[in-house]
Amino acid sequence: MINEGDISKGFIGTIKPIDGGICAVSNIKAAGIRDGKYGVSLILCEDCDVAGVFTSNKVTAAPVEYTRKTIENGRFSGIIANSGNANCFTGNQGVLDCEEMADITSKLLKIPNTEIATASTGVIGRKMPMDMIKKLIKEVSENIENSKNASINAAKAIMTTDTVYKESAVEVTLNNGEKVKIGGICKGTGMIAPNMGTMLCFIATDAIANQKTLKIALKKAVDDSFNMVIVDGDESTNDTVLLFSNGDSNNSIVLNEEDNIQKIEKRDTDDNLNYAIDSIDENFQEGLNILCKDLAKQMAKDGEGATKFLEVEVNGARTIGEAQIASKSVVKSSLVKTAIFGGDPNWGRIIAAIGYSGANMDLEDFSIAVSSGKELVNLVINGEVLAFEGTEYLEDAEKIMKAKEIKVIIDLKEGNGNATAYGCDLTYDYVKINAEYTT
Amino acid sequence: MINEGDISKGFIGTIKPIDGGICAVSNIKAAGIRDGKYGVSLILCEDCDVAGVFTSNKVTAAPVEYTRKTIENGRFSGIIANSGNANCFTGNQGVLDCEEMADITSKLLKIPNTEIATASTGVIGRKMPMDMIKKLIKEVSENIENSKNASINAAKAIMTTDTVYKESAVEVTLNNGEKVKIGGICKGTGMIAPNMGTMLCFIATDAIANQKTLKIALKKAVDDSFNMVIVDGDESTNDTVLLFSNGDSNNSIVLNEEDNIQKIEKRDTDDNLNYAIDSIDENFQEGLNILCKDLAKQMAKDGEGATKFLEVEVNGARTIGEAQIASKSVVKSSLVKTAIFGGDPNWGRIIAAIGYSGANMDLEDFSIAVSSGKELVNLVINGEVLAFEGTEYLEDAEKIMKAKEIKVIIDLKEGNGNATAYGCDLTYDYVKINAEYTT
Repeated sequence: MINEGDISKGFIGTIKPIDGGICAVSNIKAAGIRDGKYGVSLILCEDCDVAGVFTSNKVTAAPVEYTRKTIENGRFSGIIANSGNANCFTGNQGVLDCEEMADITSKLLKIPNTEIATASTGVIGRKMPMDMIKKLIKEVSENIENSKNASINAAKAIMTTDTVYKESAVEVTLNNGEKVKIGGICKGTGMIAPNMGTMLCFIATDAIANQKTLKIALKKAVDDSFNMVIVDGDESTNDTVLLFSNGDSNNSIVLNEEDNIQKIEKRDTDDNLNYAIDSIDENFQEGLNILCKDLAKQMAKDGEGATKFLEVEVNGARTIGEAQIASKSVVKSSLVKTAIFGGDPNWGRIIAAIGYSGANMDLEDFSIAVSSGKELVNLVINGEVLAFEGTEYLEDAEKIMKAKEIKVIIDLKEGNGNATAYGCDLTYDYVKINAEYTT
Repeated sequence: MINEGDISKGFIGTIKPIDGGICAVSNIKAAGIRDGKYGVSLILCEDCDVAGVFTSNKVTAAPVEYTRKTIENGRFSGIIANSGNANCFTGNQGVLDCEEMADITSKLLKIPNTEIATASTGVIGRKMPMDMIKKLIKEVSENIENSKNASINAAKAIMTTDTVYKESAVEVTLNNGEKVKIGGICKGTGMIAPNMGTMLCFIATDAIANQKTLKIALKKAVDDSFNMVIVDGDESTNDTVLLFSNGDSNNSIVLNEEDNIQKIEKRDTDDNLNYAIDSIDENFQEGLNILCKDLAKQMAKDGEGATKFLEVEVNGARTIGEAQIASKSVVKSSLVKTAIFGGDPNWGRIIAAIGYSGANMDLEDFSIAVSSGKELVNLVINGEVLAFEGTEYLEDAEKIMKAKEIKVIIDLKEGNGNATAYGCDLTYDYVKINAEYTT
């Protein structure tokens, strides 16, 4: 799914897309099975280090709190996940259901229940159908294996309104010439699916890395990928991303071990992410970024009711933070999203969305272009509007807007902050899916 | 348009809805005329005090800057407004076109051009059709009068995608027993119409008040009304609200003149709004609030493609600010809006929208109810979910969701912050209107 254009120039040759999804990583076993609207996925990876990133919504589902606690000590042997019910607003019974899911898996596979995380996605505010879930857990636990199909089945079983399964894998050549692999599966049709349908993502690697190192690398990758995807701007109660390492490659991703391990150990809050980031092998980080961006794009393309993929690149913002809020403001705008659906190169809506985002800009000096990947047309250059009615620029832009994948490139000329956000159009089908989905 | 329920208990008797829109105020003359997709409105009010509130979008149209400057010295005799073209992204020519609109009006009506504001709404990024606009200005200037019809014509001529004209007027009995009137017209189909279609609102009063007093009263009223309306969350480049007073009633709205005039004079930033607010007659302020809320609701009801009006009242937030962000987060949520369209009492989406708003809440202790105005059903009380599948609560809630006007009432039980936000559902027609509107 990753093409060369997704890989930064400096990393071509060091990062290679490979097959196999999460099972591209050796000794990662997976299985997935569905029965009607319910599905269960199991990922097994005995004795791993693990780190997680969870929803920042103050309303969280039971499995989010359960898994947050379970992985606290950094030890991890697997995750049991279900689709069809989000186990949210389920009170204390919800917590007991998480425990039971982990217990059953633990007994069936003979691994400590304290090392089994859980995740759920689906309808909220309903009790878990535990009889069905228990039946499916038993079935998946009999079918786990390390194979391409196993990854696909696991990716399929956690789908809700997703129309395609999502997986990705890369092989990374580290700075020292050694190779490691990273593979993942995810589900989600944007920042959120109907009824808080959730983004779930499980990523495995055979690199050596402890929890703190994994946390730094994962936080960085999520910031540039999943946190830059917006379908409708709502944020789920269940979002969960896990990264775990079994060390099978025997290659550490921490550079110059001595100093850097100390540096990583000292970093203990999300705020000082950059303090330790250069302790991590740059190629590994880029490989993880690319994998997460690939999965994020797959989610945006599968956005509810989406017919078009939208990528908004903001360059020249005063800071990276401003580039992020500006690009996200554009992909989130209902007016921009409907214009994309209608094939209308309506750059006025785009620049207005930047105007209210809070990012600094000068109306007299900015540039906007649209691209289909093959062709690019400038609409405004250095504040001068080219795409007036009746011009070739506007006609060419209208042709580009017919493409399935549209990239908007904006230069704010205020500084060196660059960021890219991913989204999709707003269509009749989005309304249909979400208006007709009942509690 | 205002009914008794809109008027707070303490103000019944002191605030009375009246007919006539902006022309309910004596000596306010108006006219409006349309020709195809263009329209021109003229409001005349010789020698008034004036204050304005404008879009906070960093991208602003020429008339916003022009009018901001024109009213700076507080003197005002009228406004000439057009629909069909927003005069935005029109460079220096746009400013010249504002000047010309004011000049022509000035000459035709023999009033200083420095006292004439301008406003525009419509398509952006296109040059103003000045021949058409000039023709229409000439026509309206020959037809101005103080009459019910004049107010309606002026309200109609500034409509773009609006499906109904919007006006409101109240008579206020001040603290000292004297009476003043407030009347206004507005256009807008939410916080923004397609292609930055803009909210414009012009309000006149016969009370005595200087610019600083008007600014305080207007800012307060706008915060609780227009700033609490969200149709799609986009914010226009052209939003303009003007409040002007001709003093014809001979009644000042400043209490205990001496002290309070000083207090008002000292207040010079938006930040210290509350410093001087109690210097203003409470009944006048409430009358202005009610008038602005009435116009704001008319806009929300006329939201693009809307079939249902949504009012979200958040009580018991930690602060008023948190109540505002929580209630706005709910009316802005695409998932809530589509649920309202689908008639689905999906309180999970509602509480999740509060969860990511940033407002403090405790999942174990909050309440949600829905109301059609006539009937009210509790969905969650003190954290206990009543509206489970198969319960009467859920069935009753589904009946309420069929109403045209739906109110959601939330109690966060964190403090004394209350706020109400106004919006509408997200429908196929919203997508249609905005996808098919071309640049």
